[in-house]
Amino acid sequence: MYKKDNPVTHLCTSDVDSITIRGKDLCNDLMGHMNFTDFIVFHFLGKEPSTLQRTVVDTVLVCIMEHGMTPSAIASRVTYLGAPESLQGAVAAGLLGAGTRFVGTADQAAALLKRIVALPMSERKDEAKRIAKEHHESNQFLPGYGHPIHINGDPRVKRLDEVIRDAGANGKYLDAMYLLGDAIKEISGKNIVINVNAAIGAALLEADIPPEIARGFNIIARCAGLVGHIYEEQSEPAGYKIWKVADEAVPYQQAD
Amino acid sequence: MYKKDNPVTHLCTSDVDSITIRGKDLCNDLMGHMNFTDFIVFHFLGKEPSTLQRTVVDTVLVCIMEHGMTPSAIASRVTYLGAPESLQGAVAAGLLGAGTRFVGTADQAAALLKRIVALPMSERKDEAKRIAKEHHESNQFLPGYGHPIHINGDPRVKRLDEVIRDAGANGKYLDAMYLLGDAIKEISGKNIVINVNAAIGAALLEADIPPEIARGFNIIARCAGLVGHIYEEQSEPAGYKIWKVADEAVPYQQAD
Amino acid sequence: MYKKDNPVTHLCTSDVDSITIRGKDLCNDLMGHMNFTDFIVFHFLGKEPSTLQRTVVDTVLVCIMEHGMTPSAIASRVTYLGAPESLQGAVAAGLLGAGTRFVGTADQAAALLKRIVALPMSERKDEAKRIAKEHHESNQFLPGYGHPIHINGDPRVKRLDEVIRDAGANGKYLDAMYLLGDAIKEISGKNIVINVNAAIGAALLEADIPPEIARGFNIIARCAGLVGHIYEEQSEPAGYKIWKVADEAVPYQQAD
Amino acid sequence: MYKKDNPVTHLCTSDVDSITIRGKDLCNDLMGHMNFTDFIVFHFLGKEPSTLQRTVVDTVLVCIMEHGMTPSAIASRVTYLGAPESLQGAVAAGLLGAGTRFVGTADQAAALLKRIVALPMSERKDEAKRIAKEHHESNQFLPGYGHPIHINGDPRVKRLDEVIRDAGANGKYLDAMYLLGDAIKEISGKNIVINVNAAIGAALLEADIPPEIARGFNIIARCAGLVGHIYEEQSEPAGYKIWKVADEAVPYQQAD
Repeated sequence: MYKKDNPVTHLCTSDVDSITIRGKDLCNDLMGHMNFTDFIVFHFLGKEPSTLQRTVVDTVLVCIMEHGMTPSAIASRVTYLGAPESLQGAVAAGLLGAGTRFVGTADQAAALLKRIVALPMSERKDEAKRIAKEHHESNQFLPGYGHPIHINGDPRVKRLDEVIRDAGANGKYLDAMYLLGDAIKEISGKNIVINVNAAIGAALLEADIPPEIARGFNIIARCAGLVGHIYEEQSEPAGYKIWKVADEAVPYQQAD
Repeated sequence: MYKKDNPVTHLCTSDVDSITIRGKDLCNDLMGHMNFTDFIVFHFLGKEPSTLQRTVVDTVLVCIMEHGMTPSAIASRVTYLGAPESLQGAVAAGLLGAGTRFVGTADQAAALLKRIVALPMSERKDEAKRIAKEHHESNQFLPGYGHPIHINGDPRVKRLDEVIRDAGANGKYLDAMYLLGDAIKEISGKNIVINVNAAIGAALLEADIPPEIARGFNIIARCAGLVGHIYEEQSEPAGYKIWKVADEAVPYQQAD
Repeated sequence: MYKKDNPVTHLCTSDVDSITIRGKDLCNDLMGHMNFTDFIVFHFLGKEPSTLQRTVVDTVLVCIMEHGMTPSAIASRVTYLGAPESLQGAVAAGLLGAGTRFVGTADQAAALLKRIVALPMSERKDEAKRIAKEHHESNQFLPGYGHPIHINGDPRVKRLDEVIRDAGANGKYLDAMYLLGDAIKEISGKNIVINVNAAIGAALLEADIPPEIARGFNIIARCAGLVGHIYEEQSEPAGYKIWKVADEAVPYQQAD
Repeated sequence: MYKKDNPVTHLCTSDVDSITIRGKDLCNDLMGHMNFTDFIVFHFLGKEPSTLQRTVVDTVLVCIMEHGMTPSAIASRVTYLGAPESLQGAVAAGLLGAGTRFVGTADQAAALLKRIVALPMSERKDEAKRIAKEHHESNQFLPGYGHPIHINGDPRVKRLDEVIRDAGANGKYLDAMYLLGDAIKEISGKNIVINVNAAIGAALLEADIPPEIARGFNIIARCAGLVGHIYEEQSEPAGYKIWKVADEAVPYQQAD
């Protein structure tokens, strides 16, 4: 369903003297009272985060904001090279690569963890094996599992676990994440590690934040990271060098 | 200068077991220790913000994140209507409108405020008049001044002033902002109010944050706001309705 | 497979005195010798189009370039309102809505038509019914069929058929398109008309052009249409009006 | 002026049985009657091109569509690597780099050529020198002049000249282009060659096409070229390799 005859918005309205966001006065109730993280959660969900929710969102945003010279950073930097008049264009170009291949699997991982936790404790291990088996047999990636570089385990997983248990997380979704991790190693016979997306899915569930928003957090964090790349590009431009090495790395060859 | 033979990056590197961001270990030093706002500042500037800097950045981000059904929100929503497979595309479409006409004047406003504060107190009023006159005579907008809706004064200006003085701002750039506001009213003879961009420029200067980054904060805040619009679009889709009313509002007329 | 250790490109190389595209000298062999349509086909496929191919590509590009105040045109126009410094950003914003919901079904339609034509003439009608039934039973849209406005039949379908048969098309894929159209009406019991995407899929197949490129033609044609919208916006700006009616059409309502 | 109370569109309208574009019936008058180039001109200007106009537009579009592994092509390819679900996103990312630095100077070059041709023949050489001097003294690039690779002269310039004179161009703007080229070499004392953008500006003026649309043609041609890059990327993926060499080429270095 993508049509609605008379849609409304719950987000914002304004008049000559004020701006109202989800029922609160922006100037008097929000500015100076909420930090950016809390305001993002308030904007999405309509209420201020609990302590656990704040910790989860802050830690998730921090852990996915920056990963070095990623495809997104490359796209932003070479775009800025050609169009320095448009910071927004350079950032937008980088965001466009935040698609299905490398990001945005946290929500799918969360759906699997929910399947496990929906069952009594005694049946969870079997359910994890069932899920691992389904994916193995249909030759599909298990969302949130596997990493090309961090082959001893994605270091962000353990740390995210620590931080959110310290902030009061019950841990049942994190436990399910490990059950599924053991199952996929056993069934595939391969060293498939838990990656940060499974941990993000678990963390959101622990804090009762709809994992459907996971990709949104990813986009916001990336956006901030890309602004930092363009800011660096202004004093230490790498776009031209990237152009030159890319051009050399992909030689022309006449087709037959 | 946009070419550098051997550029480096100071932002991030990683190996099999760790991710390092500006000399700190992401997992051990940053996750769980910094919130998102602090991490953004750390990523941009290489050091954690002072209390004043944190307050300025949080308040700036909160005050520009959401303004209702703006051109950016419209672009995101109608884009999502046609391409629901790509959240990143819908957000990117909205960001592309964050250009020179409605946003991104804070850095230019800041440059004018610096001109005023560079002089001894006794000469600032005259400098403000000089700036106002230059713009008036060359028929140019004064960046950070004028608002089509908030004609009694942009309510965010006064509030931003309050919040950052409470957090320890000295106030000299804010004072220059008012001097310039008085001058432009006097010289133009029009009700040209101070808008939020002048206040953002002043606030960044008060906190010793390079105002050249102002547009970057704008992009980050907008990005978060647009994610919220798409999240709302998923349950309360407005894109189709916007299409229909836009189509009716701009009728076809055969050219002569 | 998305990794290749040593990829090459067959498209283009240049040196100080010349530019070579797919083995031809741009200046001497291509400029002045090929028109834009032929050059697009040459760039994609590595050989100049036959007469039938040229007719198919030209007619397809012409028939999908412009459809009035579409979501894409709206996104481009409101983006240009905010960022008039960036023509490329306004066009890019419009292209981002050319996604899975309204465009890009021609390649999927083509795949179904191929299933039908792969069989002997006597079995094609049954295969069409089988396909219609599969989609009906699984409650899926049949790609290339159904139109919200052109309920008496999409006028471009009949015309595309005419033009390409005149140019020498054999017609077997077009015939399969009608078989499938009859089948889906019969099986669904609804007035589901053939839309332009099925006809585009058939047309490309008739001309031996890989239908996988269908979405590419769509993007190119749209891009040209959107440039025309922005060109009109420069003398007859509609972006501001669209903003205003969209804002009114989606009122604020406080959530419970 | 960016607001209009009651804007209209001259481009397109449709009803249940037909689509009308600038007063013509899409199916009966345009499909099968115009090729893509003619339709683009008709869409922009409201009338079919003359023979000279057709030649100019075709040759311009052909000469700027493809230049190898440009920043735009790099951005498109690495974006497709991360988001293969969105062809439109990959193309849009590449278009975003078609900004002020490397493209879009044809319209500015055209404005200078008009200044020269506005004078009687006997004064044109002096005017060319005046323009060259102005730019030299204010240390500004002369739009349409200078090329980093084609230092013996951009080969497309001579060829574009040939093709359009053959098609009936009078040649006065082309001649002005050479006058300005001689002047800039003399006054700067440097080997600053005429590049393709000056020739495009001259060509459009020769054919009485508003040079303000020059950037639009650039965007359309690039769009077609980028679709070709993505089509190649599907069978011969280079995005991953580009990522790897870019990452190596810009090493991490801790800031002081």
